[in-house]
Amino acid sequence: MAANYNQEPKRAANLTVNEIRPFNAEPPVSVLREHFVTPTDQFYIRNHAPVPVIDSRNHLVSVTGLIPLELNLTVNQLENDFPQVTIMATLMCAGNRRTEMSMFKKVRGVPWGNAALSNAIWRGPKLRDILLAAGVDKLEPMWDSLHVEFEGVDICKENKGYGSSIPMSKAMDPRGDTVLALQMNGHVLPRDHGYPVRVVVPGYIGARSVKWLKHIRVLRHESNNYFQVKDYKIFPPHVDWDIVDNWWDKSPPIQELSVQAAICQPGDGEAITPGSKYTIKGYALTGGGRRITRVDVSLNGGKTWEVARLFSDLHNQKTGSHNTKWSWEFWEMPVMSMPSPCTIFCRAWDDSSNTMPEDLRHIWNLRGVMNNSWVKVKVLAKSKV
Amino acid sequence: MAANYNQEPKRAANLTVNEIRPFNAEPPVSVLREHFVTPTDQFYIRNHAPVPVIDSRNHLVSVTGLIPLELNLTVNQLENDFPQVTIMATLMCAGNRRTEMSMFKKVRGVPWGNAALSNAIWRGPKLRDILLAAGVDKLEPMWDSLHVEFEGVDICKENKGYGSSIPMSKAMDPRGDTVLALQMNGHVLPRDHGYPVRVVVPGYIGARSVKWLKHIRVLRHESNNYFQVKDYKIFPPHVDWDIVDNWWDKSPPIQELSVQAAICQPGDGEAITPGSKYTIKGYALTGGGRRITRVDVSLNGGKTWEVARLFSDLHNQKTGSHNTKWSWEFWEMPVMSMPSPCTIFCRAWDDSSNTMPEDLRHIWNLRGVMNNSWVKVKVLAKSKV
Repeated sequence: MAANYNQEPKRAANLTVNEIRPFNAEPPVSVLREHFVTPTDQFYIRNHAPVPVIDSRNHLVSVTGLIPLELNLTVNQLENDFPQVTIMATLMCAGNRRTEMSMFKKVRGVPWGNAALSNAIWRGPKLRDILLAAGVDKLEPMWDSLHVEFEGVDICKENKGYGSSIPMSKAMDPRGDTVLALQMNGHVLPRDHGYPVRVVVPGYIGARSVKWLKHIRVLRHESNNYFQVKDYKIFPPHVDWDIVDNWWDKSPPIQELSVQAAICQPGDGEAITPGSKYTIKGYALTGGGRRITRVDVSLNGGKTWEVARLFSDLHNQKTGSHNTKWSWEFWEMPVMSMPSPCTIFCRAWDDSSNTMPEDLRHIWNLRGVMNNSWVKVKVLAKSKV
Repeated sequence: MAANYNQEPKRAANLTVNEIRPFNAEPPVSVLREHFVTPTDQFYIRNHAPVPVIDSRNHLVSVTGLIPLELNLTVNQLENDFPQVTIMATLMCAGNRRTEMSMFKKVRGVPWGNAALSNAIWRGPKLRDILLAAGVDKLEPMWDSLHVEFEGVDICKENKGYGSSIPMSKAMDPRGDTVLALQMNGHVLPRDHGYPVRVVVPGYIGARSVKWLKHIRVLRHESNNYFQVKDYKIFPPHVDWDIVDNWWDKSPPIQELSVQAAICQPGDGEAITPGSKYTIKGYALTGGGRRITRVDVSLNGGKTWEVARLFSDLHNQKTGSHNTKWSWEFWEMPVMSMPSPCTIFCRAWDDSSNTMPEDLRHIWNLRGVMNNSWVKVKVLAKSKV
């Protein structure tokens, strides 16, 4: 059956489309940086197949596998039979900044810039509560060795349905906040983001937050889905397409995000009047519920660094009770007298004392994933007219 | 009162003593690498004061602060009134590899080599169970904002008692495994390691695993103890002793370990016959219960890398049921024909996709902590006689 792209949803016109079929697009990075909670129509879109057409009245989510009680849940039951929680979480594609990696040595994959991530407010039942309803408390001694597989309705050319898995310990962590999202930013989930229900696995790469969720399976092993075993893996630098098949099994799937950052303003190649006042702005994030502790900015190639202002406190005041444990940080650095031309560097640190590697060449990998090398943006000198 | 160093315990003769008073010593790194579980007398010793003389029959651990029920627990009660758990955990001083950092630019602190860490089996009640007995379940909605302070019997020149704190969420995490250790490697805790009871906070820097534990306090804020607020912090690279006082408050305490590694064999400056067979050996570890996923070794200055063999599986077979979530990994790399002279590089990756920064200069900090730059060991050419 040929993939049917005749029923794709409408999308915002300002997105940068990196691939049309399946649809993969990111917003302008400057727009991303304007809203701490990304407007829904500006949220990056990462699809692996045509967007399914689903009637939410008939849609069922099955829970099967190593569980005492199989479940088949309607959307109505997901909304009404379980406590609903609201979390703020930034999702990021593992391929964010892939294009930059390709500039050193060609990699394959959707050619993302640095805006393959967005932050939203998600609402729905906790995966933990669904699994408890399926009786997994009886399996508690085994939790550390189990996995929870997700499969969507979307039929990809690589596999019958898009899928992945996460460790049971993440699914069952009371503070792990994995939810089956029915809402995004206060409205029913849009079709591009998984209507009527998607998983949101906060602190993990976006690939695990399966959209158009149809099956949940508790397994003794990781998912065998193509997207768990043959994609989203970091290889050693010497692995090329000739030998990659020896490395799929040896390389664990990427799960938690590493420490990441970007400069959103100025854009690369932007011209700024030398000596002018300017405020450099960007984002930073990290995985596993850890916190960004510091963002350093250098205007002289890393010789000296200054510490940027982080926005988490400001944000907490503005949005009240929302937990920002799973969301990015915004940062800014006012410069009184901009040296230009120059290259602006930035790097972030998180509360596990990890920081970003200096040189992209040393973390290059064949699939171009998890590029978290130092961020470098070239600024040109604007002539004073 | 002058510090009394007349009742220090006997120590193994092969330790490298980095400071006599207080006593700070590390084993030979080659010895460390011989035993997955470090023999007790070879475990690195990091003291801040004379070792207290304690009669365990009179010793009490108090639990106070924001709790419904204050407790005063004898060692006997800690052992008999609570379930006893056994965990394997590697403790590492945040100053490990400080001497190397000082070689680039002088830092202050105990001049550790790369053996300020060791792995042991700890047994005692879970901190979580002690706190539950003090009624903290009633505070559950507040857990994310609370801290648990520890204070020891030892009187340091910097503070009345050595102390620190950890987040309540770590203390209460059922899978966080923070224990009040009464035993180390199957025997009563030795005096140098906290007799009769110490905290073991696995996945965190050693500084939080307070020895000779006397007080536990549940607080709304981090500990005010000198060792929480005026030590064990990473500063931005431009911070020197003239301005450091502006930075203590701005810099969060180090808690979780970053991704780390070392080459234990050969030693730096060792001579190896060119072209001979040789097996390079080392350790790697990371924080927060994460796993080491890969160790890369380069014999040509980082131009090309090979992937070392990790020892976790072997170890699991040997020690049976011990959880190795909190312990280091051993790695080895057999080389058929050793190029010498050369410099061996190594770097580790963990399952949050973080890796070690290339250049020590870029993570240098005034206190010389958390040096996890690429490991570099120089090998000389041994002449064939």
